[in-house]
Amino acid sequence: MLRYDVTTNDWVIFAPTRARRPHELRKPTDRGDPAVVHSPSCAFCPGNERMTPPEIYADRGSGAPNSPGWSVRVIPNKFPALRIEEDDRRREDGPLFRYTGSCGAHEVIIESPNHDLFFGHQPVDQIERVLRTLHSRFNDLMGDRRFQTIVIFKNHGEGAGTSLRHPHWQLIATPVVPRQLRLKHEVSTQYFDRTAHCIYCELLAEECAAQTRVIASNDDFAAILPYASHVPFETWILPKAHQSSFGHADVGRLRPLAELLKTVLSRLHRALDNPDFNLTINTAPRGDEDKTYFLWHIEILPRLTTPAGFELGSGMSINTVLPEEAAEYLRDTTVHS
Amino acid sequence: MLRYDVTTNDWVIFAPTRARRPHELRKPTDRGDPAVVHSPSCAFCPGNERMTPPEIYADRGSGAPNSPGWSVRVIPNKFPALRIEEDDRRREDGPLFRYTGSCGAHEVIIESPNHDLFFGHQPVDQIERVLRTLHSRFNDLMGDRRFQTIVIFKNHGEGAGTSLRHPHWQLIATPVVPRQLRLKHEVSTQYFDRTAHCIYCELLAEECAAQTRVIASNDDFAAILPYASHVPFETWILPKAHQSSFGHADVGRLRPLAELLKTVLSRLHRALDNPDFNLTINTAPRGDEDKTYFLWHIEILPRLTTPAGFELGSGMSINTVLPEEAAEYLRDTTVHS
Repeated sequence: MLRYDVTTNDWVIFAPTRARRPHELRKPTDRGDPAVVHSPSCAFCPGNERMTPPEIYADRGSGAPNSPGWSVRVIPNKFPALRIEEDDRRREDGPLFRYTGSCGAHEVIIESPNHDLFFGHQPVDQIERVLRTLHSRFNDLMGDRRFQTIVIFKNHGEGAGTSLRHPHWQLIATPVVPRQLRLKHEVSTQYFDRTAHCIYCELLAEECAAQTRVIASNDDFAAILPYASHVPFETWILPKAHQSSFGHADVGRLRPLAELLKTVLSRLHRALDNPDFNLTINTAPRGDEDKTYFLWHIEILPRLTTPAGFELGSGMSINTVLPEEAAEYLRDTTVHS
Repeated sequence: MLRYDVTTNDWVIFAPTRARRPHELRKPTDRGDPAVVHSPSCAFCPGNERMTPPEIYADRGSGAPNSPGWSVRVIPNKFPALRIEEDDRRREDGPLFRYTGSCGAHEVIIESPNHDLFFGHQPVDQIERVLRTLHSRFNDLMGDRRFQTIVIFKNHGEGAGTSLRHPHWQLIATPVVPRQLRLKHEVSTQYFDRTAHCIYCELLAEECAAQTRVIASNDDFAAILPYASHVPFETWILPKAHQSSFGHADVGRLRPLAELLKTVLSRLHRALDNPDFNLTINTAPRGDEDKTYFLWHIEILPRLTTPAGFELGSGMSINTVLPEEAAEYLRDTTVHS
C-alpha cells in the first residue's frame, strides 16, 4: 500500500512484508557505562560551567551565573552552524551561484543537571521548565528580524546524531525559511484557500474521532501516529486549540504539554527499548504566526531503520510498520510515572 | 556561509568550524572478515542460484538460467517494497486519507559473481556490463505504463543501509512520481522557461570552465562536486551531451561512463578509506524523456556524517566540508587502475 501525506504531497510506501513485528524493531544499543548522575569531565554537569561558553540564560534557584544551582541552562553551541555576528546579505557569484553569510543562532539547552536521566523520566515539573525555557528562547531570538524561523530539536542516542551524552536540546535560528517548512506552509495554505480550514486541525479532529492512531491525549493536546507516517513509530503531538506559532502558544498550556510528552516518551522508551530518536518542533515562519493556515506541533522520529539509496534518491519513504499497529502496540505499553 | 542549490531551491549551511579536515572524516569501519571471493551461504554467489527467486535476466557466457556462468544477474527482491501484481487504483478513505496498491517493481542486480570485490575495483568491462544491464532493465520496465519512474540505486556499507554483503544494485519502479524528483523537474522547467536552457547543462559548463570542483572527466562525462553539496564529498557524474532520460542514453556511451565511474569510486574509496555511500541515478519521469528541461545524472552521497534533528525537522543540510576543498583532496588522490 502507498499512502498520501496531505501535509507534504508525499506518497509513502508501506511494505509490511519487509517488516519485522513492531517489537522486533527494538535495537538494544550499548549505551556505554551505567547511568551516572554526575560526570567530572562533562562540560554540561554542574560545577563544570567554566568548560562552556558563558550562559545565555538559566532557570536557577540559587547561585551566580555560570555557577551551580541551575535546573535548566542555555549556552551558545561551541561549534555553531550559524552565529549572530555574521552578516545576512545575499550575494551572487554568477547567476547559478548564490550565497549568504552564516547569520543565525545556535544554542544548547542543557535540560537538567543530571548527567544521564532520560527526558521522559524527568519529573513533569522539570519537563515543563525545559518547555518554558524553549518558549522563552524562541520568542527572545525571534526579536531579531533577520531570523526567518527557529528550528528546535533534540537528538537522543548516537544513531540520532548526538555526540554528547548529557541530555540536551538545541535550537538553530536560520536567516532563510527552510524549504521543507516552506512546503508544509504552502500545502496548508492551499488547503485553507480551498476549504477555509487548517489542515492540521482537520486531521487532528479526524484522528480523535477514529481513535485508531491516537496513543494518548488530554484536554489540550493529543499524540497521534500519522496516517502516512514516514518512519515506524513516527509520533506527533498537536495542540487541540488552533495556534500557528509555538512562540504564541499559551505558557499556561505548557504544563499539560509536559504531561503528555512525558507519557509519550516513556511509552516509546519502554516499548522500543530506549530507541534513538529525533524530536523537532514545527512552527510557522516569521510573518505567518497569526495566520490560520498552520498548527505548530512536535514530531518525534525514531531512528529504527536506515534510509538508503531509494529514500535519498527519490525523497520517498519506505515504512515497514503501519501506524495503526504501532499505535496499538504503544497503547498496550504500560509505564509507571 | 549558506549556499543556494539552484536545482532544488534549498539553502545549504556550510559550517567548516564544525569540521574536521577532509581526511579526518575517514571512518575505518569493521568490514567483517577479510575479502572472500565466494561464500557458500551467500544467496548471490554462483552455485546458490536456487536460494533466490528465479532470475529475470542474466548476462551470461554459458549455462542455463538459474545456474552458474553469469557475469551479471537480475532477480526480484525477495522482500519487495512494490510488486507488479498489485493494483494501482487510487482510493479514498475520506478527503484526508488517500491510498493506492503497492504496484511497482523491485529488482536486485547482482553486480558480479565475486562475493566481496568493490565495484570501483572491478574491470571496466564488468562495470560496463552492469551499466548495460541497468539500462536494459530500465527500458524494459518502462514499457509498463503504470510506472512513472524507476529509481536505480546502490547502497555500499552498513551505514548506507545495506544488509547483504555481496555487492549489488537495486531498482524500484514506482506508480507515482516521487516528490523530490517532481521538484527537481519543476525547478529545471522553470529555468528553461526563463532562459531556454537546461540548468544542469549550464551548471556543468560553468564547472568545466572553472575546474575548481571538477575531479575527473573524459570526452563524454564529467564528475563534479556541486557548489551547494548537501553532504561532504557529494559527487555528481553528468553527461556532456544533453539527454533527459537515462533510458534514452546512447548505449555506446556506457563505456566512457564505466571508465569515469571507476575512477571516481576508486578515488573516494582510497581518499576516505572505503566510505559507506549511496549512489542513485536521477532521470526524467515518464512523459518528460524527450524534453530539454533535465539532464540525467548519477549522484554519489557518502555517509560520513549523521543527519540529526535539525536536518530532519527543516529539510536543510549542514555540510562541514566545502566542495572545492573536497575536490582538491580527491584530485590529489592517486589510484592504480
